[in-house]
This record gives sequence, C-alpha cells and structure tokens, in this order.
Amino acid sequence: MSLDGTYDDANIFALILQGKIPATKIYEDESTFSFLDIMPQTRGHALVISKWSKARNLLEMEDEALAQVMATVKKVATAIRKAIHPDGIQIAQLNGAPAGQTIFHLHVHILPRWEGDAKGFAGHGHGVQADRAQLEALANEIRAQL
Amino acid sequence: MSLDGTYDDANIFALILQGKIPATKIYEDESTFSFLDIMPQTRGHALVISKWSKARNLLEMEDEALAQVMATVKKVATAIRKAIHPDGIQIAQLNGAPAGQTIFHLHVHILPRWEGDAKGFAGHGHGVQADRAQLEALANEIRAQL
Repeated sequence: MSLDGTYDDANIFALILQGKIPATKIYEDESTFSFLDIMPQTRGHALVISKWSKARNLLEMEDEALAQVMATVKKVATAIRKAIHPDGIQIAQLNGAPAGQTIFHLHVHILPRWEGDAKGFAGHGHGVQADRAQLEALANEIRAQL
Repeated sequence: MSLDGTYDDANIFALILQGKIPATKIYEDESTFSFLDIMPQTRGHALVISKWSKARNLLEMEDEALAQVMATVKKVATAIRKAIHPDGIQIAQLNGAPAGQTIFHLHVHILPRWEGDAKGFAGHGHGVQADRAQLEALANEIRAQL
C-alpha cells in the first residue's frame, strides 16, 4: 500500500486496541498503547501506537497524537534500557509499503541493539514469530521498570 | 559512544546551529532546524534537530523538545513528498553507537524511499559526500513546498 489510501478499521493494530486479538502489553495510558512485537527482530523489540488517531502514517498524524506517541516511546525505551541493558536503541517509523510498512496504523518501532549486532532495519516480515510465554516474561521485566 | 556520557558542545550539529560550519537548510523555526544530510543514503535524505535541547539521545530528550522535533519531521516529510514524490518515507532515530549513532546531538532521519530500492537503514558512515550545489538545488525544491 502506498502513502495514499484510507484507514482500515480492521487492521491488526485496530483489532488489538479493540481487544479482538491479543498483544503482549508493556504500557498503556489514555492516549497510547505499547506492546512487544510478535515477530521481534531484536530482543525487546516493542511498538507504540496511538489509541485514538486514525492516521495510517506520519503524513496524516495529528501533532498531538504524534507528541503523545513519542513521549510513550521515550518512556518505554527508558524502561527497556533498565530491564535488559541494550548498548543502543534504534527508533524506526515506516511510511508506505516501499519503506517497509506492513500495518497501516501509524506505529513506532523500538529496537534494542547490542554491540556487534547488525544495525539495519527494513520493517516487518523478516522475523519469526515469538513464543507468547517468553514474550510475556520479557514484558514483565520491562513493566517492572515503568 | 554508549548511551551514557555528556553532551559535547563542539559536536557537528552544535557547530551547525552556531553557524560555524555550513549546512543545506530546508526549514527552521524557533525551536527546530532541518537540513539535508551531507552524506545522503537516499535522494532527499534530511535531518531534523532541536535548537535548544542538549539531549544526546532519546533517553535524555525533554518531551517538549521531542514533540517540537517530531512536528517538524512531519512538516518536512510532507514537503519532501510533494517535491520529489517518493513512494514511501522511513523515519529513523538512532541512540548510541551500537545502534548506528555517530553524532551525539539527538537527530531524526527522514529517508525517502522508492519502490524496489533497499529499505534498510543502519546509520551514517555508509553514504558518500554529496555535491553542495546539487544539495542546494534539491533543498530549493523542498523549500518551495513549505
């Protein structure tokens, strides 16, 4: 899907927000929701989304929703750092399929990095599905730092 | 450099803000500054920085400065899209050398993407220095959309 189009109310993240499909929650407040990626590309790979904005991408995002999402990105990244001690953290936000976007509800990736690991990130579809129980244990470690 | 450390007032972006070294400016307001990357990894590769925050990385960034920077990222990305019509846009923000960060003044990368191009991004040090006159011509095209 290109940068043009309309918001699909049945996209995976909308369904997560509606409670129709499960997610490994890390953090939630009035305006934002954060959870572990089910196909993590690094240990602690987390996502942050807006609970109210129907922006598919950055170009459509309300400044207020963007500020809320980024404040949560900072909060969750800080907790991830305390919990699992990465050497670095990459933040990525992909707009349009040619940039690697696969789910068209704006989301920000938090990718913990360790010395010596590969640094590149090209979007979803390159990881393997994680074990839910392991993800939940990891989420517990991160939540304990929030 | 790791995620720990202190802000260096002589980092390249601080020197750009002080007018001591040149940059190909796209946009500036009271709180933020945007310019074309001198070693672009895609056509239109731009950066956005805060003019007042001394945060080296996301973990140190004031929420207000982060919101200002992201609002400018959206504004500049929108102008880049109108000017050079990429098929997608990747946003990246790297924290710590192990995540690919090379300049320790928080900055957000705007990377226009075209169908069929590689999508990955691993930070600076992988591009070649651009011709200043060509960058300036490109910046003119983008500024015309702001």
